Amino acid sequence: MGKPVRFKHKKKHYTLPEPGTTPGFVFIDSSSLKPKINFYSFSASVFNMVQLNSLLDITNKTKNKDLFYWVDIKGLNSAELFNVFSEELKIHKLVLEDITRTYHRPKFEEYDGYNFAISRMLRLGEDASLENEQVSFIQTKNVLYTFQETYEDCLDAVRNRLKEGKGNIRIGGTGYLMYALMDMIVDSYFSILSKWSEDMDEIEDRLLTRPDKSVMYETQLVKRNLIAMRRVVWPERDKMNDILRSDSHLISEQTKMFIKDAYDHCVQLMDMVESMKEIASSNIDMYLSIISNRMNEIMKVLTIISSIFIPLTFIAGIYGMNFAKQDPVTGKVMPANMPELYQAHGYEYTLLVMAFIALVQIIFFWRKGWFK
Amino acid sequence: MGKPVRFKHKKKHYTLPEPGTTPGFVFIDSSSLKPKINFYSFSASVFNMVQLNSLLDITNKTKNKDLFYWVDIKGLNSAELFNVFSEELKIHKLVLEDITRTYHRPKFEEYDGYNFAISRMLRLGEDASLENEQVSFIQTKNVLYTFQETYEDCLDAVRNRLKEGKGNIRIGGTGYLMYALMDMIVDSYFSILSKWSEDMDEIEDRLLTRPDKSVMYETQLVKRNLIAMRRVVWPERDKMNDILRSDSHLISEQTKMFIKDAYDHCVQLMDMVESMKEIASSNIDMYLSIISNRMNEIMKVLTIISSIFIPLTFIAGIYGMNFAKQDPVTGKVMPANMPELYQAHGYEYTLLVMAFIALVQIIFFWRKGWFK
Amino acid sequence: MGKPVRFKHKKKHYTLPEPGTTPGFVFIDSSSLKPKINFYSFSASVFNMVQLNSLLDITNKTKNKDLFYWVDIKGLNSAELFNVFSEELKIHKLVLEDITRTYHRPKFEEYDGYNFAISRMLRLGEDASLENEQVSFIQTKNVLYTFQETYEDCLDAVRNRLKEGKGNIRIGGTGYLMYALMDMIVDSYFSILSKWSEDMDEIEDRLLTRPDKSVMYETQLVKRNLIAMRRVVWPERDKMNDILRSDSHLISEQTKMFIKDAYDHCVQLMDMVESMKEIASSNIDMYLSIISNRMNEIMKVLTIISSIFIPLTFIAGIYGMNFAKQDPVTGKVMPANMPELYQAHGYEYTLLVMAFIALVQIIFFWRKGWFK
Amino acid sequence: MGKPVRFKHKKKHYTLPEPGTTPGFVFIDSSSLKPKINFYSFSASVFNMVQLNSLLDITNKTKNKDLFYWVDIKGLNSAELFNVFSEELKIHKLVLEDITRTYHRPKFEEYDGYNFAISRMLRLGEDASLENEQVSFIQTKNVLYTFQETYEDCLDAVRNRLKEGKGNIRIGGTGYLMYALMDMIVDSYFSILSKWSEDMDEIEDRLLTRPDKSVMYETQLVKRNLIAMRRVVWPERDKMNDILRSDSHLISEQTKMFIKDAYDHCVQLMDMVESMKEIASSNIDMYLSIISNRMNEIMKVLTIISSIFIPLTFIAGIYGMNFAKQDPVTGKVMPANMPELYQAHGYEYTLLVMAFIALVQIIFFWRKGWFK
Amino acid sequence: MGKPVRFKHKKKHYTLPEPGTTPGFVFIDSSSLKPKINFYSFSASVFNMVQLNSLLDITNKTKNKDLFYWVDIKGLNSAELFNVFSEELKIHKLVLEDITRTYHRPKFEEYDGYNFAISRMLRLGEDASLENEQVSFIQTKNVLYTFQETYEDCLDAVRNRLKEGKGNIRIGGTGYLMYALMDMIVDSYFSILSKWSEDMDEIEDRLLTRPDKSVMYETQLVKRNLIAMRRVVWPERDKMNDILRSDSHLISEQTKMFIKDAYDHCVQLMDMVESMKEIASSNIDMYLSIISNRMNEIMKVLTIISSIFIPLTFIAGIYGMNFAKQDPVTGKVMPANMPELYQAHGYEYTLLVMAFIALVQIIFFWRKGWFK
Repeated sequence: MGKPVRFKHKKKHYTLPEPGTTPGFVFIDSSSLKPKINFYSFSASVFNMVQLNSLLDITNKTKNKDLFYWVDIKGLNSAELFNVFSEELKIHKLVLEDITRTYHRPKFEEYDGYNFAISRMLRLGEDASLENEQVSFIQTKNVLYTFQETYEDCLDAVRNRLKEGKGNIRIGGTGYLMYALMDMIVDSYFSILSKWSEDMDEIEDRLLTRPDKSVMYETQLVKRNLIAMRRVVWPERDKMNDILRSDSHLISEQTKMFIKDAYDHCVQLMDMVESMKEIASSNIDMYLSIISNRMNEIMKVLTIISSIFIPLTFIAGIYGMNFAKQDPVTGKVMPANMPELYQAHGYEYTLLVMAFIALVQIIFFWRKGWFK
Repeated sequence: MGKPVRFKHKKKHYTLPEPGTTPGFVFIDSSSLKPKINFYSFSASVFNMVQLNSLLDITNKTKNKDLFYWVDIKGLNSAELFNVFSEELKIHKLVLEDITRTYHRPKFEEYDGYNFAISRMLRLGEDASLENEQVSFIQTKNVLYTFQETYEDCLDAVRNRLKEGKGNIRIGGTGYLMYALMDMIVDSYFSILSKWSEDMDEIEDRLLTRPDKSVMYETQLVKRNLIAMRRVVWPERDKMNDILRSDSHLISEQTKMFIKDAYDHCVQLMDMVESMKEIASSNIDMYLSIISNRMNEIMKVLTIISSIFIPLTFIAGIYGMNFAKQDPVTGKVMPANMPELYQAHGYEYTLLVMAFIALVQIIFFWRKGWFK
Repeated sequence: MGKPVRFKHKKKHYTLPEPGTTPGFVFIDSSSLKPKINFYSFSASVFNMVQLNSLLDITNKTKNKDLFYWVDIKGLNSAELFNVFSEELKIHKLVLEDITRTYHRPKFEEYDGYNFAISRMLRLGEDASLENEQVSFIQTKNVLYTFQETYEDCLDAVRNRLKEGKGNIRIGGTGYLMYALMDMIVDSYFSILSKWSEDMDEIEDRLLTRPDKSVMYETQLVKRNLIAMRRVVWPERDKMNDILRSDSHLISEQTKMFIKDAYDHCVQLMDMVESMKEIASSNIDMYLSIISNRMNEIMKVLTIISSIFIPLTFIAGIYGMNFAKQDPVTGKVMPANMPELYQAHGYEYTLLVMAFIALVQIIFFWRKGWFK
Repeated sequence: MGKPVRFKHKKKHYTLPEPGTTPGFVFIDSSSLKPKINFYSFSASVFNMVQLNSLLDITNKTKNKDLFYWVDIKGLNSAELFNVFSEELKIHKLVLEDITRTYHRPKFEEYDGYNFAISRMLRLGEDASLENEQVSFIQTKNVLYTFQETYEDCLDAVRNRLKEGKGNIRIGGTGYLMYALMDMIVDSYFSILSKWSEDMDEIEDRLLTRPDKSVMYETQLVKRNLIAMRRVVWPERDKMNDILRSDSHLISEQTKMFIKDAYDHCVQLMDMVESMKEIASSNIDMYLSIISNRMNEIMKVLTIISSIFIPLTFIAGIYGMNFAKQDPVTGKVMPANMPELYQAHGYEYTLLVMAFIALVQIIFFWRKGWFK
Repeated sequence: MGKPVRFKHKKKHYTLPEPGTTPGFVFIDSSSLKPKINFYSFSASVFNMVQLNSLLDITNKTKNKDLFYWVDIKGLNSAELFNVFSEELKIHKLVLEDITRTYHRPKFEEYDGYNFAISRMLRLGEDASLENEQVSFIQTKNVLYTFQETYEDCLDAVRNRLKEGKGNIRIGGTGYLMYALMDMIVDSYFSILSKWSEDMDEIEDRLLTRPDKSVMYETQLVKRNLIAMRRVVWPERDKMNDILRSDSHLISEQTKMFIKDAYDHCVQLMDMVESMKEIASSNIDMYLSIISNRMNEIMKVLTIISSIFIPLTFIAGIYGMNFAKQDPVTGKVMPANMPELYQAHGYEYTLLVMAFIALVQIIFFWRKGWFK
């Protein structure tokens, strides 16, 4: 028996604020990272990127209506930062609460003058655990603010496209940029699923060649990851649908065609997740049937050997009894006691009887198909 | 085998009124608590709290239209109390029936001049049992009446915010206050789920290290609690949705934005409950497969030992037989009887044969992978 | 092993009319009961009850528009009776067919000048079987006709309230009276569920203390009853909803508020039925895991004892062999045959070896945790 | 072990036309039956029935607008026949394709001047197999054409009612006649379900008294039949609903009231099918638990007997060893070898020890409850 | 035990483009096939087919408004090709992306001046694996472009009908041609299902006659294929529905009647897939119950033989003990030691006792029904 593979849940234990705090309370988790702010300004022909230390006076910095701006914030540990959003940009405090409490489902909400959205960025950690990070979006006419918890992410491809000005990315406005980031995140789900799919192929190979406990443990682990993935993909699809049905003027019709594409990807992801879950379940069923079969096989070996030899041993035991033909003390002869022992060929006949009994049993088991 | 952990259902056995009583009959359960009434009056700048003995003349006490009032009633054992609601405040008798029969699902209903709502307050008792109490709300333009069965609750945080005047709580009116209380109750569900989630982590650890019966019992217990939680969360979500879609002028648009937030929390709770149920089920599957595996292991030990020694014992039995080479009475010599016994090295050859048989079997089992 | 508790299905075998009879054919089951007719006339101040032998001239008897009438018919075995409905009251023949074929689901239908409804009255028989009887309602402006198959029912509480004039019952009209009867029937479902819930508590106690076959049988019995109950409650809820959405002028808005209450009760019943089914299923799972565990325990005892003693018995068998040190006939000495037998302390050493082998095995099983 | 009851699937293997044939291609299966055509003409006072050889000139034969006509076609093997429909009656070729390819789901479609519907006629074959035949309807203002594959059917009751002029059947027009036929078919489902329900009662009796493999096989067979039934009933209900929502002037409002009744029957059938499936599943669960219990019982017998006798046999084996008190060759006395054998009461003490060991074990197993 | 049948997943591993590439990026998989282009022009009286090397100047080639054109492209490995679509035909780049990334679900989308659709062509490979290829359609007023990955397909029947001018195919326009191709693809699903259905019949026969591991493996394989099929059929049905509800002027009402027919086929396919999945699951249940039964049978053989012979062997062991009647050294007589051995008929009595014990046990097992 192999050692059981331990589930590797790198569970993220959120520091929850006290229950009962004021709704809309911006909660700064002191163990989170200090913000790094990248400030991009771009148009079809312009591209600039600077690092900011604070968002003070951001209204002024983004006042040029010919340019689009992307304020890319990594790390949420700054009360001052959220103060700017609350005071200067008049963002609703429930929005800011949602940004700072990073365990929300994907969603899209329209507010006066801006849209708010949440995506969940999934990543396979080093030990194959699933890391799940919140990315929040505030989109105004010409500025997109994004918030994420950690410094690393899977969005560099979009940053590069922005720098190089490929495709629509510089001319599609903040709506298209938000779409491009969301789409990038959804794309990364495909890579993760594809990794799990390979894992499942490998587990399945093992299931068919040398099934042991680890097959069960690892299949359950994949299944559990799929449950976690599904919890993200379903609301992600709903979010895309909300954007499609929204009549916000901040999302252009052209962008909506791309959102429709991302929506289709979500549906496809759901399909894949559900199919993989079904396959995982069917592998578990198969594993259990293999265990049962193996038990049958073990029991057959035991039963064949026991059934053949126990009666033979009994016969040997009979003739190992010491019933006396002659009393050793009185010398009385008792001819009825075990006369077989005193036949000239008793031993040989006994062996023949034993062989016959064994043969009958072997034929019986053969007929039952136990040797197959 | 450890002692089975008993399910701890502190089942609340409601004293039901006779079936067939008049619908709308206010049922005073004589075993319930006498009411304690706290009377809050507040505005942005004012905050007062007094204890009342009765609600007589309540219309007069709440006539100042510049103030909001919260009548916080704990304990329902007073016919006189409900008389006031019925006669003075003209509350529909079906509403009063719903308040006094404290086993209703969460709901929201609009009546002429007031709204009626029910929440269910969940609490983990000392022995990890789930206590489930009804909180009822009657909301008029400037008075909120709340009813609960016991004196303790999880709402003190809201009372403190009201006292300290933090956030919207004093200026949002009775609608916002009702929301704040409901939200507090929903928030407490998260704490309970988080407790169960820790329990499940602990059970899972045990499942993987030293699985015994208690794993099964405790997982079933969590699952059962989750079923109970789900029965509360689903209608809670529907209630929030009903409030959102209501066009009652008693719920302002600003408050509805907060209600939307609470609605999102309910959806998230449902998500979590469903995921946890799936994980509990998959742990039970895993436990069952572990039992099966263990059975396989036990059977393997038995089969290996039996299969090796039973044939050897048979051989020993053969040579323990007493077939006589010479009749003790007549002295007749029978050379065909067990000549092996009289070979100079019969014993050694026999031991070798036995060792050979054992070896063959060990190789056979080794090949079958039974020693792994 | 206890004797299996037999399922007690007192299955009602309806005498079905020939397939292919004319639709709308009023089918008089000759084995059913003769009708007993109670005729109530009432208003806020009036209450009269007489027994009728026939409904002939019923139009005349109910012509006073200031009174409401309830014609309470128990027993359906009278062609003449249905003739009155068909000819004098012009009730649609499909309605009459539905009344006489007493296996319909709860429903509500509006016709010209009257409403038709079906409820199903459930009752626990003496041997805990579930009896399921149809109650039909024809409601006109001021007359309510009710039809039931047997003489006993659970509606006496309503009859008493009518007699005593409590609540709305005399002034609410035929709509309210119909509601009161339906509500009474739905209320009785709660009592039945509550009985089953106690049964399940008792079964569960047995499951945890001395699980035997009866746990399985009885849980399955409860589950089956719950399936039957669900088949009644779902359409009952739909019926209530149909009444709510109906714009029949025969159902007043005030009555609809009560119907809404009954609708809520149905939803709650569904909730309870589903939860109880889930709990029953989880108890069955637990029972199966207990059986598996018990099998493990049995196998452990067998394996420990067999594994320890089979090798020891083999050793004893070895030294029970009769390899001769000296040929009894020729007197030839064969020193290689079983020299151990002729050591001064051979026996003691052998016993020590046996004890050692047993000890090693006990330690092995101890380590495997089989003694726990 | 009884012989397994074989599933009796009299599977109908349709001769499919080549994939890729023109859509709307009328496919004449050469192995099908030649058509027999009965031509009914009727009104409230008129009834005529003649056999036709062909439908040529059918327009002329059905030109009397005061009569209704029913063209009852059994057997579809005639290209000429479908030519008439295509050329003379201008029936859409997709309709004719659907009639000739007899594996369609129940449906209702409106075309210009006529309606098209499909029902599925189920029948229990002699060996309890489920036969599934397609009945197609083309309904015009005053002619109803019906098509079925075989000569026998369950519709004679309707033909008799038509002949005898009972009920609405002659005056309700082609819509009512079509309803009457469809209703007859749905009614026959009830008989089939009732037969299966009796089968399940019988199987259940066997499950509780002498469960063997056949319980499993037969329950699975019923379950499979129920799956097949469900595949027919669901679309049948949808069909009825389509007719109800249709605004075809060919279906009168009076007829729709009857269709509503048939719709209710379909819902009831679905209910029954689902309940029976649930009961079948629960019986399978019970069967499996009975097998497990039986295994437990078998193992208990084995374990009790083995555990008691194996140690005793070992003790007997000990005293069957031949350690010599005196060397037969040298005559050396070895008093340490098996001194028990030479005690005056060694045998009796040994028997007492054995009895004690057996007793201890019996008490142990008794305490474990293994004798119950 | 037979060798396990390996799952044959010929998994198609798509070469995915880098995540994060520009949305709408036309991805040319260099391992795919070079395009072969067949160019059909046709009307009721005209039919021409030529092979093209490139689509350059395609607008000119299709300018005759009296003809319809079908551009049948097999193999997608040509950037130049997609350039034509992008530049000359102004096809949206998301459409071209969808065509080149051949893992999309079936769908239908309307664009300015053209429709876009995807079907999935399923094919059983040589080793019974399921191959799944994407077919894309771009439909304009008088040109239909189709794209597929490989050179072989199941569409030749449609090409032949086009050549021979059977049915509507030449006069129905591009909409009808697109329908005909889609319908052909859906038709081929029926053949595949029919193949699997035969497989399942064969597996089921084996299940009932000689169930071994392969039954489990192969049933799981079919189930998995059914899951894959369902993933295709569900969106296919939705696609058909989208076409039906579309108000694109490129799809005529006549064609929609045919689409409705194809929609019905998809519903029927779903029905069949679901039923087959249920049957597969029930076969797996049956297989598991057969394994359990077989285990019971094996255990019964073991238990009967062990239980009968172990006690007998014990008795033989008793009388094989060497308690001495007379001390060989001192010659002391010990009459209490095994006096049975020195009875004149001790041996015969012992054999009788053994036979009696065996008989009692056989009767016991007979009564328990273990010999059946």
